[in-house]
Parts: sequence; C-alpha cells; structure tokens
Amino acid sequence: MSHLRKSLYRVLETSAGKRRGISLAFNLLLITIITLNAIAIVLHTVPEYDRQFAVLFTDFEVFSVVFFTIEYIMRIWVCVENEKYSHWFWGRLHYIFSTSAIIDFLAIFPFYFTLFATDLAIVRILRLFRIFRLFRISRYSHAFRLIQNVVTEKKEELILSTMLVIFMLIIVSSVMYYVEHAAQPDQFSSIPATMWWGVTAMTTVGYGDIHPITPLGKLLGGITAILGIGLFALPTGILVSGFNEHIRDRKAPQRKVCPHCGKEI
Amino acid sequence: MSHLRKSLYRVLETSAGKRRGISLAFNLLLITIITLNAIAIVLHTVPEYDRQFAVLFTDFEVFSVVFFTIEYIMRIWVCVENEKYSHWFWGRLHYIFSTSAIIDFLAIFPFYFTLFATDLAIVRILRLFRIFRLFRISRYSHAFRLIQNVVTEKKEELILSTMLVIFMLIIVSSVMYYVEHAAQPDQFSSIPATMWWGVTAMTTVGYGDIHPITPLGKLLGGITAILGIGLFALPTGILVSGFNEHIRDRKAPQRKVCPHCGKEI
Amino acid sequence: MSHLRKSLYRVLETSAGKRRGISLAFNLLLITIITLNAIAIVLHTVPEYDRQFAVLFTDFEVFSVVFFTIEYIMRIWVCVENEKYSHWFWGRLHYIFSTSAIIDFLAIFPFYFTLFATDLAIVRILRLFRIFRLFRISRYSHAFRLIQNVVTEKKEELILSTMLVIFMLIIVSSVMYYVEHAAQPDQFSSIPATMWWGVTAMTTVGYGDIHPITPLGKLLGGITAILGIGLFALPTGILVSGFNEHIRDRKAPQRKVCPHCGKEI
Amino acid sequence: MSHLRKSLYRVLETSAGKRRGISLAFNLLLITIITLNAIAIVLHTVPEYDRQFAVLFTDFEVFSVVFFTIEYIMRIWVCVENEKYSHWFWGRLHYIFSTSAIIDFLAIFPFYFTLFATDLAIVRILRLFRIFRLFRISRYSHAFRLIQNVVTEKKEELILSTMLVIFMLIIVSSVMYYVEHAAQPDQFSSIPATMWWGVTAMTTVGYGDIHPITPLGKLLGGITAILGIGLFALPTGILVSGFNEHIRDRKAPQRKVCPHCGKEI
Repeated sequence: MSHLRKSLYRVLETSAGKRRGISLAFNLLLITIITLNAIAIVLHTVPEYDRQFAVLFTDFEVFSVVFFTIEYIMRIWVCVENEKYSHWFWGRLHYIFSTSAIIDFLAIFPFYFTLFATDLAIVRILRLFRIFRLFRISRYSHAFRLIQNVVTEKKEELILSTMLVIFMLIIVSSVMYYVEHAAQPDQFSSIPATMWWGVTAMTTVGYGDIHPITPLGKLLGGITAILGIGLFALPTGILVSGFNEHIRDRKAPQRKVCPHCGKEI
Repeated sequence: MSHLRKSLYRVLETSAGKRRGISLAFNLLLITIITLNAIAIVLHTVPEYDRQFAVLFTDFEVFSVVFFTIEYIMRIWVCVENEKYSHWFWGRLHYIFSTSAIIDFLAIFPFYFTLFATDLAIVRILRLFRIFRLFRISRYSHAFRLIQNVVTEKKEELILSTMLVIFMLIIVSSVMYYVEHAAQPDQFSSIPATMWWGVTAMTTVGYGDIHPITPLGKLLGGITAILGIGLFALPTGILVSGFNEHIRDRKAPQRKVCPHCGKEI
Repeated sequence: MSHLRKSLYRVLETSAGKRRGISLAFNLLLITIITLNAIAIVLHTVPEYDRQFAVLFTDFEVFSVVFFTIEYIMRIWVCVENEKYSHWFWGRLHYIFSTSAIIDFLAIFPFYFTLFATDLAIVRILRLFRIFRLFRISRYSHAFRLIQNVVTEKKEELILSTMLVIFMLIIVSSVMYYVEHAAQPDQFSSIPATMWWGVTAMTTVGYGDIHPITPLGKLLGGITAILGIGLFALPTGILVSGFNEHIRDRKAPQRKVCPHCGKEI
Repeated sequence: MSHLRKSLYRVLETSAGKRRGISLAFNLLLITIITLNAIAIVLHTVPEYDRQFAVLFTDFEVFSVVFFTIEYIMRIWVCVENEKYSHWFWGRLHYIFSTSAIIDFLAIFPFYFTLFATDLAIVRILRLFRIFRLFRISRYSHAFRLIQNVVTEKKEELILSTMLVIFMLIIVSSVMYYVEHAAQPDQFSSIPATMWWGVTAMTTVGYGDIHPITPLGKLLGGITAILGIGLFALPTGILVSGFNEHIRDRKAPQRKVCPHCGKEI
C-alpha cells in the first residue's frame, strides 16, 4: 500500500526519478484535458456549436469532472509522501488548504453542486467557476511563478502605484462629475458612473459611450488623458524592469565579480 | 498649559517619542475618517443612496467638519512647538499659509460658507471643494512626497515636454481645422474645438465623437496619432526613470564605491 | 554556358565583385518594380482609379509577372553557383524550398492559376497572394533580418508573454461573458464574441462597438484595461530591449575589454 | 552706418556683449508677439470671438506683419555682421535661404499675397501659412534643437522603424480589405480606405468609425492591435533613449574615466 502510494506520488508530481516516463505522459494528458476544457468552455457559449455538439459537450464535461475528481482524491491520498504534509491527518488538511489544492477543488465542486441546485441563477454563477480549471495549468507554467515572484518583489511599488491611480481616479471623476453633470445628467449621473469615464480616459481606451461635451469638461478630459499616460507608465515601468531582472537572472544564474572593482563581469 | 500643548503636539504629529501609541491611534482614526469621507463624497452623488441614507450623509458631514475644525484649531495652537513656527504670532501665521494647513482649511471652509450662501450655483461649486479632504491623506503617504520629489527633480525636462506637446497640439489642430472645417463645419467648428480632437488623437484615447473624414484629414490624423505616441513617450520615459531612481535610492541608502575607479559597486 | 551562368549569378546577387555596377542597377530596378507593384495593388482597389487606369493596371500586372517569372527561372538556373546549392538537381530542389524562393514563387503563381480558375471566390483569394510581392523587398532590407534575429533571440520571453496574454484573454472574456450576457445578449453573445471586446479593451483600442454597461461589467472592464496595459508592457519591453541591443551591436562591432576585470570598456 | 548695423545686429541676436539689456527686451517683445499671434490664430476661428473682436484681430494682424516685415528686412541688412554671411550679396542670399530666414519669410509672405489674391480657396490656404509664425519661436527654444539633434543621431533607426510601420500597414490593410470588403463594402471600400482603419488600430486610437465585423476580420483586428503596440514601441524606445542621452549629456558635460578600466566614472 505504502509502495503504491509512493509510485503514484512520483507519477502525479513531475520530478526526476524512476517513473519519469509515466509521470510525463500523465501530466501531458492532464494539460491536454485542461486545454480541451478551456476550448469547451469557450465554444460552449456559441449557440450554433452548443446545439450541434450538445451531447459531446455534456459527455466531455462529465468525463473531465470524473477524471479531475479521481485525481483530486488521489493527490490528497499521496500528499503525505511530501515532507511538508507528512502527518496522516493534519498534513492532508494542510494540503487541502494549499493554493493549488483549492484551485483543484474549485475546478470540480461547482459540477456536483449544480446537480442539486434548483435555482437557475446560482447554476449560472457556478458555471463561471469552471474557469478555475484553466488556472490548473499554472501548476506547469514558469510564467505564473515568474509573475508571482515579480509581484511579490515589487509589492511596495505596485501598492504605491495602485493607490495613486485610485486616488487620481476619485479626484478626476469627482471634478468631472461637477463639471459635466449639468450638461449630461444621464451620462455623468453620479461620481461612480463618472469613474467609468475616468478609467476609460486614463487608460486611453476611450470607448466613446461617455465623454465630456462642455469646453471645461473637454479641457479636463484632455488633462486626464495626459495624466493617465504618465500614471500608468509608472506600474508598467516597474513591471517591465521586474520581469527583465528575473529573466536575466534565470539565464545567468552564476555571476563573476572583478577582483579589482567588485563589479559583476 | 505648555505641557498639554507639548503632549498634544506629540499626538498630532506622528513622530517617535513618548505618546507614540496614542499618536498612532489618533492618526489611524484620522485616516479612517478621511477614507470614509471619500466614500461618502462618491456615494453621495448616487441618487438611490442619497435618498436612502440622506440623514446618515448629513450627520457624517457635520461630524467630519466638527472633527476637522477642532483638529485644525488645535494644530494652529500647537504648531509653535515646531521650531520652524516657534513665534507665537508670526510662527502661527506662517503655519496657516503652509501647504498642509491650506489643504486642512480648504477641507472645512466650504461647509461653513454654504451655511450662509444662498446662491445654489456657489453651493454646488463649494461642494466640489470637499474633495480637498482627500488630499489630507497626502500627509501620510510616501507616494505623494515621491511624486513631489520626482517632479521637482525632472522639472526642466517636464516643462520642455509640456511645451512640445502644447506646440504640437496647436500646429496639428490648426492644420486639421483648415483641412476638415469645410467637410465637417459642425465638428471641426474652430481651432479650439479641433484641439479636443487633437488631444484625443495624440493620447490615442479616440472617443470617436470627432474624427476626420476627408482623405487628407485621415492622412493627417494617422500622422498625428503616430507623432502623439512618440511625443508622450518622452514625459513618460522621464517620469519612469525618475521614479525608478528614487525607489532604488530609498531601498539602497548606502552604497559602496570601488577604490580603483570610484564607481559604485 | 558556365561562364554566362557565373556572370548572371553575380548580377542577380548583390555581392562585391566584377559586375557590381550592373548588379546594383538590376537590383534597384527590381526594388522599383516591387514598390510600383505595392502602389498598384493598393490603388487598384480604389474604384475610380481602377476604372480610369484599368488597362494600365492590367498591362503592368502582366509585365511584372513576366519579369518576375524570367527572374525566378534564372535564379533557379544560377543558384548552383552558390556553394550551398551546388548539386545540379538536389541543390536546385533545395533552393526552391528556401524561404526567399518560396516568397518569389508565391509572388507569381497566383497569376497563372487565375488564368485557368473559373471560381470567382478563388480568384479573389488568389489576388490577396499578390501581397507576397511586397515581401520580396525583405531580401534587401536589414530591418527584416533584424526583426528575425530579435524574435529568434527573445523567443522564450515572447512565447511566455503570448501565453500570458491568451490565458488572460480567456479568463477575462469568460468572466465578462457571464457578467454582461444577460444585459446585452446581442453584443456579448458568446465567449468568442466577448473575446473581441477583450482584445480591444486589453490593447486599449476601444472601438466602442462593444463595451460593458452593467456596473459589475464596467468594474471588470476597468480592471481589464489596467491589466492590459501591464500585460502588453511586457512583450513591448522585451522587443525594445532586444532591438536596442542589436542596433548597438551593429554600430559598435568591435569592443575593447578592460585588462583588469574583463568588462567591456 | 556700419556702427549702427553692428549695434542692431547685437540687439537682434541674443548674444552676450554690450547691448544685452536691449537685446533681451527686444527678444522678449518678439516672443510675446509670437505668442499673441498663436492665441489670435486659434481664437480667430471661433465665430463668437471673430465677430466680437473682428477689428482687433485685423489690427493685430496688420501690426504683426508690419513688425515682422521690418524685422525681416533688418535681419537681412545686418546678417553680414555674422562671419558665415559676410559677403554683401552672396552672404545675404545665403542667409535668405537659411532655415530660420525661410520660416521668417513664410510668416509674413501670405499676408502680402492675400492682398492681391482674388481666389478665395487660395486665400484660405494662405491663412494656414500663418502657423509658420509659431515656428519662429523655435529660434529661442532648446527643445527644438534637442529634437533636431536626437532625430539626426537616431536617423537610421527611425527610418528603419518608419519603413517597418509602412510595410506592416500595407500588408495588414491589404489582408483586411480582402477579408472585410464583402461584409462592409462602404467602410472597407478600398485598400487606401482600409489603411485609415489600419492606422487607428495599430496606434490603438480606435475611433470606432470603422472596425471589422466578421469573425476573421476581428481575429485579424486583434492581431493588428497587438502587433501595433509592439511596432510603435520600437520608435518610441529609440526616441526616449535618444532624449535621455541628450538630457544627461547637457547636465553632465564633462566625464571622468577610471584609469584602471577606462570606464566612465
């Protein structure tokens, strides 16, 4: 039993070792099923495809959930092989509340819930939860770990930038509301409504569904767009430099130092 | 009396010292009230909330103003503890005209003014002044000091960029006016009106409420958008490099220098 | 015969040597014809010009194809002068499947095909293939080689960024579909349809043909625009730094190295 | 006479020397008149102001032209004081065809031409030439010299980027024309018409007056927007680094070099 658990652990977790071939095959299968799920979730909403392939979509849904459920239970069973979760009860409980196990759970739980749910509104919301199946791919991607690292490292600067953006958004939207409300009471109906304009102006999206028409509003709108470019340049610059540093580090893990000036060579 | 003033000064100003716990508590309370004010100012403009919580909004408004007024008077009273404003009269006058004291004043003054104002238009404008309460948060934020420093340091480059943007805006809008006025006399009615197009084109917002329709106008519109990306890249680049320098400085206050070439290690 | 082939090879390929003047003249002629083809392809679609200069367009089309065909056959004939393709049969076959020979072929083949094709739909698609004539200019441009090099070098980072953008697009569009579908069933009719919104929002294009109208949708729309700026900053930063490195390298082919620390001076 | 010419030269050209006070005063007057001309040109097109201040605008126009004409003639007279234009005839002819003298001429010539012109269309175009008066300010601005230097230095890269942008625009617009023409024959009527879409998509302006509606067109539209962000990042990055280098150079004109590794200190 303990031997089977060890073997299964090696298959589920992609790590160098004996059963590497089987592990690779299993994980490729898992990535394929996740990708197919992504395609199914997206195409499922197109009425033509939904009508034509309704049975196929349902069958694949049931198959995916069964597959993911078996995998989820197995992962909980074998997780004790990992030193971090070695205790038979507390270790498994600890594992269940780890980020990746929660994602795995959210990928299957809505299906079972919808079997008993009668309220259509709740079923609709639960369907949205299927998107969590896509996040399962993060287990395999360096990209997500990279983002996590960059965000963790540049946390302080990003919070600072976000605060500035929110602060600026409130100020700009408040002033715009008082300037444009009289001219366009339907569009700039309240400060929260004006904030939608504020975001589209500061990010330079500019859908055109809401925009100032008074001369003063246009002046303020122009200044907002210019300010927005400057403001969003800040977090952008922070992220770009953060990513560049990490990518460089991964490519050149070892560095030599000049004995004369101590600079990296 | 002098002792009370000293204690109060220590509470109002967040500085290391004896009454640090009380000071921290008081300043957290102040930040909370300012944040609640921001939320109240924003939600107050939503008709549904305004109707439902009218009494709450008014009560909180009165409470905030009374709180800020007492605090404002106290700050003037205790400011003489600060060496910069030590004279009992001239020091206080000097303090009243400091940036942060002016912001504090603008946060409360409109309320008292509206009590006596009868003209609704003025009352409306004075309500806008309540946004200054948000700026009070700048007292606590490193972000604002950072922006202030970056802007001060890169002043020359920012003025240069702004001049270029304004110059380009006038040139582009003037040419576009003469090109498009005949085809769209309502939209491109004058050069100032065309400037609104100029800003939305150069910042790439592009609301779509005004855009060229003649072939020559479209050619000019395309060139303007490309020029705009180049032009706004300049101040953006300046700001990003400015922020990066400051953030790096704060993180690494001490630097080592190579004994051979004097460069930082 | 072998002598003629050698001379012709020198004329067709721009390389230093004897017949450099003729080679330069021939290649300038080729660039001119390609550029004229680009202008003809573009103007040909304007009804007025097409009616007025119909004969001219047809004559130039025939002339171009004949010229390109003779050139294409000649290139196959003389390619054996190149060491890479020296075998009389396998060398030529190898050359025919090289990138530049395929582009040359795609630039002429549609014309001959349309002579026999009777289906108008196919003729229409084949006309599109004439755009490959423009790609022939890549033979002469350093810019295209530069792009090729940068993309090859930064492949890993670009794939990572593209994956992130696609992943984000699916997530954002799926959530938006469930949020907005009830309010705008015609616009946000399916997740693939919502992806069109997703792209215009994340790239900040914002045509305005599709945009959220519910408060929750607007909130998500704002977050998407901000995320989009951050996401696209990544590949942009990668490309800019890649180009800068290459341009710097081309300008300074030789570098000196400090004898002490081995760093470039 | 020669003495008067020398004095006048010193007044017209801002250079250190005897009559510096008068020179400064004169040049400030000139900048003021140019700025007022900019304001007059812009406000003149607003119907209300034009009606109200018609006489004022005309008077200021006449005054400006007379002032600029006298100044232009004087500059030609005194230019021989400059070593570059020392010959009494060829020097002056050389000066007349210098960039700044041509700008000075274009700022006044349209006025005299309109006195005799009878064709209203020509008068309208000539009015546009008054914008050249704004360019006169370039004589005083470091910003314009900076731009000139950056553009000259990064010429090769900017030409390369521009070529790429034009090439991409033709390719993308041609493909989009063949994809969307059948669905929207009025909007995507020809490749030149589609290029207007191409520019607004690649610069992410997105007015919304023209956008793809077919699924294939939307896919291409999405890819275009993403490509556009990458493409325009290139010239933007080049310009930003060019400006940064120049601004740094101006601030730190002298550089020290480490005797050990030859690197700048």
